[in-house]
Amino acid sequence: MLRLQLLLVNLGAKFVGVKLGILGFGTVGTGTVQLLQDREGRHPLLQEIEIYRVGVRSLDQPRAVKLPEGVLTTDLEAIVNDPAVDIVVEVMGGLEPARSLILKAISNGKHVVTANKAVIARFGAEIFTNANQAGVYVMLEAAVGGGIPVIQPLKQSLSVNRIQAVTGIINGTTNYILTRMQTEGSNFNDVLADAQRLGYAEADPTADVDGLDAGDKIAILASLAFGGRIHLEDVYCEGIRQVSKTDIAYAEKLGFVIKLLAIAKRQTKDNSKLSVRVHPTLVPKAHPLASVNGVYNAILVEGEPIGQVMFFGPGAGAGATASAVSSDILNLVAILKTTTTNPNPLLSCGHDDYCQIAPMAELVTRFYARFLTKDQPSVIGNLGTCFGKHGVSLESVVQTGVHGELAEIVVVTHDVREGDFRLALAEISTLEAIESIPSLLRVL
Amino acid sequence: MLRLQLLLVNLGAKFVGVKLGILGFGTVGTGTVQLLQDREGRHPLLQEIEIYRVGVRSLDQPRAVKLPEGVLTTDLEAIVNDPAVDIVVEVMGGLEPARSLILKAISNGKHVVTANKAVIARFGAEIFTNANQAGVYVMLEAAVGGGIPVIQPLKQSLSVNRIQAVTGIINGTTNYILTRMQTEGSNFNDVLADAQRLGYAEADPTADVDGLDAGDKIAILASLAFGGRIHLEDVYCEGIRQVSKTDIAYAEKLGFVIKLLAIAKRQTKDNSKLSVRVHPTLVPKAHPLASVNGVYNAILVEGEPIGQVMFFGPGAGAGATASAVSSDILNLVAILKTTTTNPNPLLSCGHDDYCQIAPMAELVTRFYARFLTKDQPSVIGNLGTCFGKHGVSLESVVQTGVHGELAEIVVVTHDVREGDFRLALAEISTLEAIESIPSLLRVL
Repeated sequence: MLRLQLLLVNLGAKFVGVKLGILGFGTVGTGTVQLLQDREGRHPLLQEIEIYRVGVRSLDQPRAVKLPEGVLTTDLEAIVNDPAVDIVVEVMGGLEPARSLILKAISNGKHVVTANKAVIARFGAEIFTNANQAGVYVMLEAAVGGGIPVIQPLKQSLSVNRIQAVTGIINGTTNYILTRMQTEGSNFNDVLADAQRLGYAEADPTADVDGLDAGDKIAILASLAFGGRIHLEDVYCEGIRQVSKTDIAYAEKLGFVIKLLAIAKRQTKDNSKLSVRVHPTLVPKAHPLASVNGVYNAILVEGEPIGQVMFFGPGAGAGATASAVSSDILNLVAILKTTTTNPNPLLSCGHDDYCQIAPMAELVTRFYARFLTKDQPSVIGNLGTCFGKHGVSLESVVQTGVHGELAEIVVVTHDVREGDFRLALAEISTLEAIESIPSLLRVL
Repeated sequence: MLRLQLLLVNLGAKFVGVKLGILGFGTVGTGTVQLLQDREGRHPLLQEIEIYRVGVRSLDQPRAVKLPEGVLTTDLEAIVNDPAVDIVVEVMGGLEPARSLILKAISNGKHVVTANKAVIARFGAEIFTNANQAGVYVMLEAAVGGGIPVIQPLKQSLSVNRIQAVTGIINGTTNYILTRMQTEGSNFNDVLADAQRLGYAEADPTADVDGLDAGDKIAILASLAFGGRIHLEDVYCEGIRQVSKTDIAYAEKLGFVIKLLAIAKRQTKDNSKLSVRVHPTLVPKAHPLASVNGVYNAILVEGEPIGQVMFFGPGAGAGATASAVSSDILNLVAILKTTTTNPNPLLSCGHDDYCQIAPMAELVTRFYARFLTKDQPSVIGNLGTCFGKHGVSLESVVQTGVHGELAEIVVVTHDVREGDFRLALAEISTLEAIESIPSLLRVL
C-alpha cells in the first residue's frame, strides 16, 4: 500500500509519497490543504505528502484553494475504500457519517487523523478497539485545544508521571464571553449576542455555552492522562448561562476571576476514582489559568514528579487547527518512513547546515535607556536632536527626578537598528551635559 | 542486542527488557532512578526498563536509592562499551568525559538520552552527525526547560509551522533573582547572596547570571525551530548583573517587567538570517511571559499558521528533570518495541478499561454562594449555624449591600464535600429570612 521511495519521473519531478484522503473541506479542511500545499520553510517531510482525494458535499461550491482535476469528489465512501489512500483525514465534523467513515477507513487498514472531539468522546472505545485490531493509528491532536500540542505531550512526554489533575480552559467561546463580561462589566446575554454577531459564538450556542464541548474534550484528556476510558455520561457539565456580572464583580473583590474550567482529577487517595467535570469556577488571580483570556485555551497538567506544567495557545481557528491536523499527518508519515536502517526523521536530527546569524548591530528592537545629566533645560532637546540625527525615534521621554545635582532621564525608543542606536549613544555620551548612561536595556 | 519479549522465568518473574546504562548519579540521576524504580501509576511501558548499570565516581558515597549488587560501577567506559546496554543515559554533566562517552556510546550503536545542554550546544554537530551515521537517536528533552515538554513539541508537533520566533525564560536562577528584585525592591547583589544561601544560585553563579546557560539553551531551541545548526559563538549573551532596582522601578511605571529573555527570531524578510540572543528585556505586563515568575520557565513559540503557543513549567529540579529524562527513555523503548505488527505503544491506545468516576456529591471543593436575605441582624448567624450543622466551614462571609428591602450576603467556604454543602443549602433555603440563592459556584 505504501510507496515511500521518491519516484523521480524524468518529465518533471513527480513525488509518489503518502496519499491523503481528506473528508471535509470546510474551515479546517481548507486550512489543512493550504498548509500542505505551501511547504516552503516548513518541515521537509511535508514534501512526501500527496493530497490525493478531498471529499465534499458539493462540487459546485467556490473554494479558497485550487486542487488538481479529479481530487475533489462527493463519494466519501470511495475515499475510505480506495486502496491507494494511506491516511484518512476526517475534518468533516458531526457524528455521522464521520464515525462510520472512520471505522471503515480503519477496517481497510488506513491510519486516521481526526479533529472530531464529539466522535472520539462518544465512540472512542469502538474506534480505538478497532484501530488496535487493525494495527493502525488514530491521531487526534486537533480534537482538544486547537493548535496547542497537548495530546502528544500527554501520551509521550508526561506519561512517566503519575498524573494527579488536568485542568483546562478548553472552550474559546465561553472564555471569550467571560473575559468580556469581566473587563466590560456586561451581562451574559449582551456579550453572547455580540459574540454571535462577531462570529465567536454560533447561532445555536448550546454546545459551547452549556459546557458540552468542554465536556467532550475533558473526557478525551482524562482518558489519556489516567489511562482508562471514560463514559461521557459520567462527565458533569455545567455551563456559564447563570454566571452574572454581579458574581464576577464579587469574585473580583475577593481576589478571583470566574472561568469555565474542565477538570479531571484523582478523587480518592487510592486513586481508584476520578472526578471529571466542567463548571464555572472562581480561580485565584495568581493561578496560572487566571490570566488566560479571550479565545485562548490553556491546559494545566499536575503530576508527580513533574509538578505543574501548562500548555497555552489558540484554542480554535483554521490555522491553529490545521497546524494540529498537519502535525498528526507528519507524525504518521514519519512512522511510515521509519525502518531499521532509516530512523524516524522527526526524532533524529535532519539538518547539517549552519544557520546564518545576524550581528547584533542589525537587530531591530526598542530600547530603554537611563541617563544621568546636568540639570539644564536644554538636555532633553539635545538628546532628541542627537537621536533624530541617527534615525532613532522616541516613544517616551520621562524626566523622573533629580539626584543631587543631577537629573535622571528615561527614554524608550521606537523600533530602531541597534547599530544606529549605538552610534547615537556614542555621540550623546560626548555631550557636555551627559554625566553617565547607567542603563541600557532592550524592550520586547 | 535488544530482547524485547518478556522472558518470564518460573522462579519469580524476571523481565529482560531494555537495559539502561546511566552515567552519573547526582541529583538528576538519582531522580531518574527513583522514578524508574517506582512504576505504579505510571506508563506500563516503564516495566520493560532495566536499570542495568549506573556509573559513579566513587562507590563509597551514601546514596538516596538502593540498587541491586553489581549495578553501581566506577568504570564508565565499560558501560558505553558493554554490548548488553541498549540506551546510555548521560546525566553526569560537564563537557568531558561526557562528550567522549556519548560519542563512544553512539559508535557502539547505542541510543543516547542526555540532559547536558552544555555538551549539545557545543558539540551537537559532531554528536548528531555521528548519531545519524550510526542510525541511533540522541534525545535531549531535559536539556532545555527542565520538565517542560518543549523539545519534542518543537520536533514533532510544531514543525509543520514556519517558526518566526522562539522566546524563552529558560534560566530559573536569574528569573528567581529578577522576580525577587521586582517584588521586594532589592538590589541584585543582596538577592544573589540570598539565592546562593537558599540553593537557588550556585557558589559560582557566572553561567546563570551572565546568561551563558540560557545561551546554550537558546542555541539548542533555535537549531530545532529553524532546522539548522548554530555556532555557539554567534549567540549574543548579556546577563543581569547590571540590572538595577532603579530600572526595575522605572520599567514598572512604564508598564513593563524586566526578564532575562532568550530569543531566536527570523531577522530578515527573506528568512536567511536569524537573530539569537540572551539579554535582560523590558516585557510589557500584558505579555504572556511577563507573569512567569520565580524559578518557573516558559517558552513562547510563534509560527505560521499556529500563532502563539506557550509552554510553562518547572525549569529545574530533580523531579522535573527526571520526568524529561524518563520520557525520552520511554520514547526510545516505545520505538524499540515498534514493529510492523506491533504499533508504537505511545501512539496507539493502550487501555480498554473504563475509569471509575466519582459522583459529584463526593467532590471535595470550596464553594462561593450568594444569598438574597431579609435585612435582619440574625441572618448571618442563622446561615453559620446551618452550615456548621452540616460540617461546612466558612472562609469568608461578606454582607455586601442592600438591594431595596433585601441584603446580599456572599459566602466562600473551605473545602467541603459537595453532598454536605447541598444538604446545608437545602436547609438554608427553607429559612424564613432567605429570599433566594441566586448564585452557586465552585472555587478552585
